Amino acid sequence: MNNIQLLSELKIQADTKILLIVLDGLGGFPGEKGLTELEAADTPHLDALAKKGASGLIDPVRRGITPGSGPGHLGIFGYDPLTYMIGRGALEAAGIGFDLQKIDVATRFNFCTLDAEGNITDRRAGRIPTEINEKMVEKMRNITLPGVEIFVKTVKEHRGIAVFRKEGLRGKLHDTDPQRLGVHPLKAKPADGGESVEMADMANQWLSQVFEMLKGESPANGILTRGWCNYPEIPTYQEAYGLDPACIALYPMYRGVSKFAGMKVYIEGIRDFSTKIDVLTKVWPDHDFFFFHYKHTDSAGEDGDFDRKVACIEEFDKALPRILDLKPDVVAVTGDHSTPSVFKAHSWHPVPILMAGECVRPDNVSVFGEKAAINGGLGRFEAQYIMNELLATAGKITKYGA
Amino acid sequence: MNNIQLLSELKIQADTKILLIVLDGLGGFPGEKGLTELEAADTPHLDALAKKGASGLIDPVRRGITPGSGPGHLGIFGYDPLTYMIGRGALEAAGIGFDLQKIDVATRFNFCTLDAEGNITDRRAGRIPTEINEKMVEKMRNITLPGVEIFVKTVKEHRGIAVFRKEGLRGKLHDTDPQRLGVHPLKAKPADGGESVEMADMANQWLSQVFEMLKGESPANGILTRGWCNYPEIPTYQEAYGLDPACIALYPMYRGVSKFAGMKVYIEGIRDFSTKIDVLTKVWPDHDFFFFHYKHTDSAGEDGDFDRKVACIEEFDKALPRILDLKPDVVAVTGDHSTPSVFKAHSWHPVPILMAGECVRPDNVSVFGEKAAINGGLGRFEAQYIMNELLATAGKITKYGA
Repeated sequence: MNNIQLLSELKIQADTKILLIVLDGLGGFPGEKGLTELEAADTPHLDALAKKGASGLIDPVRRGITPGSGPGHLGIFGYDPLTYMIGRGALEAAGIGFDLQKIDVATRFNFCTLDAEGNITDRRAGRIPTEINEKMVEKMRNITLPGVEIFVKTVKEHRGIAVFRKEGLRGKLHDTDPQRLGVHPLKAKPADGGESVEMADMANQWLSQVFEMLKGESPANGILTRGWCNYPEIPTYQEAYGLDPACIALYPMYRGVSKFAGMKVYIEGIRDFSTKIDVLTKVWPDHDFFFFHYKHTDSAGEDGDFDRKVACIEEFDKALPRILDLKPDVVAVTGDHSTPSVFKAHSWHPVPILMAGECVRPDNVSVFGEKAAINGGLGRFEAQYIMNELLATAGKITKYGA
Repeated sequence: MNNIQLLSELKIQADTKILLIVLDGLGGFPGEKGLTELEAADTPHLDALAKKGASGLIDPVRRGITPGSGPGHLGIFGYDPLTYMIGRGALEAAGIGFDLQKIDVATRFNFCTLDAEGNITDRRAGRIPTEINEKMVEKMRNITLPGVEIFVKTVKEHRGIAVFRKEGLRGKLHDTDPQRLGVHPLKAKPADGGESVEMADMANQWLSQVFEMLKGESPANGILTRGWCNYPEIPTYQEAYGLDPACIALYPMYRGVSKFAGMKVYIEGIRDFSTKIDVLTKVWPDHDFFFFHYKHTDSAGEDGDFDRKVACIEEFDKALPRILDLKPDVVAVTGDHSTPSVFKAHSWHPVPILMAGECVRPDNVSVFGEKAAINGGLGRFEAQYIMNELLATAGKITKYGA
């Protein structure tokens, strides 16, 4: 029995509300003055919350593992990212805000360059500009096959996605990208023994029409597909935890993962951070779990802008009282991974977390920060167990065994 | 290879003694003065032991999971409670002190009320008083079946157990309780594909005689069975750890789980806490592992009596020197779960543990308490690993690999 199955067995109803606040890429690394972004930031409200509650450090996937945004969010949503995976096609679709349906099969593709013999000479077609990609995609939309609806979308530069919509379609195929030069693109083949043979046939018909259409183009005269998959089969928040969850997030990737987890995604009316809190406030009566996402910390970290990341954390801290006025029974503040601005990238460093609520046993920590969290009562743990702590504190799981 | 299998492979003999002291429901929650029961208690001897040894916090099952007494004890005995389960019938039998044998099949039952058509109108027969239960059970003992010995026992109110004793009997049956009203009780059916078909036939014969006998009674004119199982198949302390263990505990539930783990259970001569230590002292030469159970902390917590829980901890502390005079090579003091008196119930909060012995690497902790333990050298860990620490410190496991 894995952890999600355990929680699913123990779930009970309780008239309480859980608020999970994610400051994207929150975890940092000491800058010139020896303090991390979070430690350097002036955060009186976060500190007060840490003092009242308990702190700790989470490893989003496992110790030492730097997560992408997909696994990072799966982890904090309580899914072991090594057990529950979202196919790359579905994740990329989510990332561009494509509204994937349960019957869909999705794949990523790269535009590539083929020589006169049809052998690959560049697997990324010289990283063509996005505008060229968009023009080619526009053309590819004219390709139809009987009995299936096909969607083709630009992602960026040489990357795109294709989605095939047909009831009963299984989409576990091998990549057609051979991952090397000087050979033909591969044919689509089922990777599951046979269930996906219909999709494989369809993919090959579609691909040959695509190749036919792109024949005269340069440098992008072919495509290579990768990450074929169906709509992700992960237990929803309803199934796993008995929750009726809401997602308040602007960025497509997080909205996508939230949707796969069964969350109702709210975006209408969000123009900035303040209106995001307005939306949270508006939907507060309608749900019992709220995932509230703040993106700018990660962007500042990725840009290597220490001071801007500090300023983002301070912006969030100033707004915290307005959020806490909603009176969640349990609130947690954490990140989906670290994005230290000195690294300008996601990192494996554990992410500080704080949790507060009437039934949280306090510790001695009185500020929110990486060093302080080391001595927190929550200890250091894998993100997949955040939901255990939240559900227990909210009275939403019952005793295990007699 | 799970943890118990690992320990089993590494076990070696050493002339050392391990003492595991369990203060039931030890973990607490801050009361009015901001201190937990353990923090508020005056415990000079426990503090001295914490100072000498190492402290930490345990999660009996997993983070956030509130354990029943069964899983709670399995955890501190080194069994992962999600892997090793004790069937509810066997646990209930243990709970009333029934001496379950290896060939037995046990089930719990509720008295229920049936209408004239045999449909269930009350799954608990109005929670009849225990005395009525006892009278009905007395009658039911007259029912016999050829080739099998049957035991029927009152538990409490509408609850009882039935035990079927016959060599080779497999007892994995579905409940006959349909868990809803307005329908007939179910027939007993094997839940294992067929091995338990003999028990299912026998159960159905027995049940029809029980229904026949109770026909005229009111309100309890039927029974619903739940939790059919054999004697628990968990590796014993001998098999898993190579230990010859003793259990000094008064309450049936803990004695039962200890017996399933292969412990020799001592109760004769125990009248109070002092005579319990006498018995421990008396059997000290005969074993190399001792599970010493102190119950009153849990009862006080369940009753919501903060001061009494404090007093119980202090009572234990006063007696600790007499226990330590036995000179165990390793001693651990912990609980099987938290029972904060402010909650009047078991809770999910991690339980403080201290361990002392010549080979325990000391930490900086100098008092025994929830907050102090956060910074302890043992860290926060799942209870199933307590045995690793104890066996290692006692020199009873060898190196893994060359």
